[in-house]
Order: sequence, then structure tokens, then C-alpha cells
Amino acid sequence: MTRVYLDHNATTLLRPEARAAMIAAMDVCGNPSSVHGEGRAAKALVEKARAQVSAAFGADGADVVFTSGSTEGASLACGDQELQGASIEHDAVRSWINEKLSVGMDGSVQVETPEKSTLQLANSETGILQTLPQGLAVTDATQAFGKLPIAFNWLGTTRALISAHKLGGPKGVGAVVLKRGTEMTTQIKGGGQEMGRRCGTENVIGIAGFGAAAEAAARDLENGVWERVEGLRNILEEALVAGASDTILVGQSASRLPNTSCFATPGWKGETQVMQMDLAGFAISAGSACSSGKVRASAVLTAMGYDEITAQSAIRVSLSPETSESDVLRFADTWLAKEKTYRARVA
Amino acid sequence: MTRVYLDHNATTLLRPEARAAMIAAMDVCGNPSSVHGEGRAAKALVEKARAQVSAAFGADGADVVFTSGSTEGASLACGDQELQGASIEHDAVRSWINEKLSVGMDGSVQVETPEKSTLQLANSETGILQTLPQGLAVTDATQAFGKLPIAFNWLGTTRALISAHKLGGPKGVGAVVLKRGTEMTTQIKGGGQEMGRRCGTENVIGIAGFGAAAEAAARDLENGVWERVEGLRNILEEALVAGASDTILVGQSASRLPNTSCFATPGWKGETQVMQMDLAGFAISAGSACSSGKVRASAVLTAMGYDEITAQSAIRVSLSPETSESDVLRFADTWLAKEKTYRARVA
Repeated sequence: MTRVYLDHNATTLLRPEARAAMIAAMDVCGNPSSVHGEGRAAKALVEKARAQVSAAFGADGADVVFTSGSTEGASLACGDQELQGASIEHDAVRSWINEKLSVGMDGSVQVETPEKSTLQLANSETGILQTLPQGLAVTDATQAFGKLPIAFNWLGTTRALISAHKLGGPKGVGAVVLKRGTEMTTQIKGGGQEMGRRCGTENVIGIAGFGAAAEAAARDLENGVWERVEGLRNILEEALVAGASDTILVGQSASRLPNTSCFATPGWKGETQVMQMDLAGFAISAGSACSSGKVRASAVLTAMGYDEITAQSAIRVSLSPETSESDVLRFADTWLAKEKTYRARVA
Repeated sequence: MTRVYLDHNATTLLRPEARAAMIAAMDVCGNPSSVHGEGRAAKALVEKARAQVSAAFGADGADVVFTSGSTEGASLACGDQELQGASIEHDAVRSWINEKLSVGMDGSVQVETPEKSTLQLANSETGILQTLPQGLAVTDATQAFGKLPIAFNWLGTTRALISAHKLGGPKGVGAVVLKRGTEMTTQIKGGGQEMGRRCGTENVIGIAGFGAAAEAAARDLENGVWERVEGLRNILEEALVAGASDTILVGQSASRLPNTSCFATPGWKGETQVMQMDLAGFAISAGSACSSGKVRASAVLTAMGYDEITAQSAIRVSLSPETSESDVLRFADTWLAKEKTYRARVA
């Protein structure tokens, strides 16, 4: 039986368009900072990708500063700003903020002073979406970009974090998108690349992959591929609710990413479920990938008011346009059988 | 006539071994932080590359922390240390240091307090090598790694910066190598990757390419490929000296990288030479690639005591094991013809 990968919010497959762009970029030898022909050819790849990312993210006229991913992006955009935020933010953002914003049971966050706050667009664990206030300092759009019809220029935020590998580009590439003229700390200095905001020789191959993936993701989004994914997610959740009466669907009544399902079965540890399902051929996660090595309660769920036992029992299933109905049904059957075993053991 | 690329210190061709490793890594979907099988497979690629880089750099038992390149490496290793250094260091290092160490006419740097100093192993513009004092805080080994038989464990330094794209890996990947237990500032936080020293989802494809390139570079070095390159470099320099009596070879009497030639023709601006040679089909540089967009005197040459006019007229030719004798002779002929035209114009 082939394995079923249902952890697309952790990272997803490299798109064929990204693969082709990266392989083509391997033949371009120059350094984008060199003035000769070979250097200009490498620079052209970077600028083509910048235009692709900008177009896909609806950021015409904004600055796209390439980074090594959203974790670096968070340090650049949030690092020196003393922003307020909620504890449902990703650890990369939480490292830099004052976590004083409260979170409702439905996962929504009330922002007090937008220009001194950060608020994610979509939560990686629950998929719950936020409505951003005008004038927001920073939004982490890492999970939303590519899955939702959004445009930076209409979001009302000054800065946004995006990452290639969540939409089918390579891992280790991302960008901070800024309204033109917005200040940003420089942490990596010397060389003058990215207009001095993020120096160092560019990850040309990775950036070319990001551009191609962003363009393909925008096309897929426009073609409605996520509507089918949302349908599969709903089939999954109906099966789970029908078969496991103690299981709680998190954020089911909120606006969510179309591909994400987070559910908790109080008492049955999320890490245990992940391991059991891995052995059965399914890749899922408990909490965000970055912290998934640690056995601990989801900070996202505790922030929403769930108790520790429930928060420790949450798992996330995240689909992609490649996911089939049979993948989803096989997952539900296998998981429900294990849930039955668990219940019998603790009964 | 095919173009001749002689700017391998700016960046060099992707090695076939790196290309193959990167393409293979494209099929590995997981996030190295995920605990399931797909995540462990991605983690295995990162750890294989770490072992390859460690072996090639003679750093058994040391810590290899992957970064987005030596510019980021410099900010991590030098950022909070108030180190002393010389103005022949790369801009990425110069951004963080007190440039109080003096440079001899031969390019050599005298270090006063090794544990509070940084000193490059090889200069990117002149190729001149330094002898590192025991207990040095940081060395920038970016240009030396892969071209010289060096081992981190014998260098006497506590930290070293290395980069993939100078030895045939992809651009946008590097590492800080540290004696085990050495402290390092964390700039990119959240997620816990690289033992918390450099967080963010790993550039798995690029890191796989770095590992394969480092292994191949070490093999080539052992097989003596750079001796042939050094012979070609010497043929080039003999031709230049024989044909252009005003041209100064920089660092010819010092120990140098085998592939690098830096020469100045006072009055004839380096940038002009780069552009003329580019039009004639040759890629070379004036100064380091990162600053090559700017027309200014080489800080390296002025630090060595050359006057402004001479420093503005320096160019760098850097060869690779792929360079042929015919490439070098064609370069010399073309450059000497242009030099003659220049002399006739200013006579």
C-alpha cells in the first residue's frame, strides 16, 4: 500500500513548474551581483521570480525582499518592533512579540493598535482565518498564500511574510513583502543585495523555484482547485464525527483554510496518534512541524481556551490538490479503527 | 566563439554531483522537523550533507550549522563580538568589525589578540593567504574551502565561515563551523532547527547540493586538480607581464590561491576593463562580485598600500579546473590587445 501524505501545511510537494525552473537555473552560472553577461543572466532569473511572486501575491508596486523563509522573515519584520500579538502565532513570530492579544474560543484575535501589532492570516494548525485590521504592522501570510484568493495590496497590512515551500516551491526560500518605502532592519549586512535590506549572494535556484511555484499556485487557485479540496476535507470531518463521538473538530464554525482539519480526542495524545498513523502509512502532525519533535500541548489550542488534556490530543490533517477521495476515506477508516482500540483500552 | 568564464571566485559552475543530489532531493517531500517517515527522510538528507561537509572541511567533532551563505554566517559569527579585523576582509565581515588591524604591502595581516579577532584564510580579490594564529575567534574560509588542503580542526580557529557556491554547490547555502560548545548568537529564532542556533525550515535541496559538492571538491583537491590550474594561472601572468610592462601583479610573491590572479594597470579603470572584456566574450571582475556594481577603488588594494589610481585599475581573473589553456591564452591575447589600445589613447 502506498503511503498517504496528509501533512501539506508542514510542507508540500515541489510543483513540476518549480522543479523545471530550478533545473533550468542550474545551468546559469553567474553571480547576480556581477556586471558581466553571466551575472546579468543570473540577476534576470531573480527579477523574473520577484515579478512572479509579486503578481501571484497581488503586490504590484510593493517591495518583495527575498529571504531564506518565513522564520528569517519574522526576525526581519518583527525583530526590532516590539509588536503585540497572540499566542496562536507561529513560534517564529512568537519569538519576537509581546503576547498580550487575547484569543476567542472561535480562534479570533482582537487587535488593539494595528500599527504596533502582528496577526496571522491563517493558522497553521487549525486553518482558522483572521480578518486583518487596516494599518496592521505585520501579517504572517505563510499558510494563506497560494490557498486563498488574497492580494497584499488589499490586505491592509504594511508587511507580510510568505514562504515558497507551503505552495509547492522549495524549502529555504521566502520573502518579506513591504509597502514601498517601509523601513526594515537589516540583519545580514555587506554586499548590498536586495537594496541592502537582506545581503548575501541570492539563492538563485531556490528563488527561481519560488517564482514558478507562486505563478502555478495562483493559476490553480483561480481554476478553483481548492473547492474540491474543501469538499474532501468536509467528507473527512463528517466521517470522523459520525464515527468518534468524543472527537472535537476545532474551528469548524469559523472561516478556515480549505485544506485543514484539526481535531482533538481528549486523553489520546496527539503524538501517539501521529506515530500510530505513521506506522499505518499516513503522514499527519500534532502541532506545527517545527515543534513536532516535542511532546507538548498545542499553544494554539490552549490560547483558544481548550484545557491541557484536549490541547495535547489535537492532530492536524492537511490536504493538497493532489489528495484523492480514496486517500481521505482510507485515512478516516484507519484512524477510526485506532480510535476504537484506544477507547476500548481506556474504557 | 563561446564565452570564457573566468570569474570563479565570484561563483562557480554547479558540479554534476551537486546537481544530481539536488534533483534527487526534489522528490523527498517531508519537512525535516516532522516526526513521520517523510520528515525523517528529509532530515536524513540534511544530516548526510552535514557529514559530507564536515568530512570535506576536516571538522570531525565540530558543529556545522547550516546558513543561507557566508554573509549570514558572518552576521552570526561576528555580529555580537566586537572583533578586530583588517579592511581586506569581505564586506560581509567588515560590516561587523573594528578595522584596526594593519595590512602589509604583501597583504599579510598581523593579529594582536586572536581571541578577539577575525582573519580570512584567502582573499577573494588577490587570492593572498594568511597564516592564522592559534585561538583566532573567526576565520572566513569561504574562498579557501575546496581550493586548498585545509582542515578546520588544524586551523587554530574557533569558528569558520564556508559557502557552497564557491566550490560547486548552489548559491544561498553555507555554514558556520564551530568548535563544539562554542556560543553563537541566534538571529533567526523559533522552531528549534539546527539545535536552536539557526531556526527555520532547512533549505533541504540546497543543503543536499552543498554536501555533494563539498565531497566532490575534496576528492578533486586530493587528486591534484588545482596544480594544473596553478600552472595555467602562471602561464597567464607570464603572458601579461611580457606584454604589458606597466601592469602590476598583485601578491605574486605571496602564497596565494592557485586559481586567482589580480593585476592593476594604473590609469585604466577596472570597471572599464571588465566591460570591454565582457563585450569581447570574457567574464572577469573588478573587486568582489558583491560590490562590483559600484565603481570604486578596491578596499583590499588600498589597505595594502596601493594608491587610489592603482587600486581603481585592478581586475581579478579566477580560474577553475574546467578552465583550459586555450581559454587562458585567448584571454591574454584579447586583454593585451585592449591594453595596447588603451596605452595608445593615453600616450
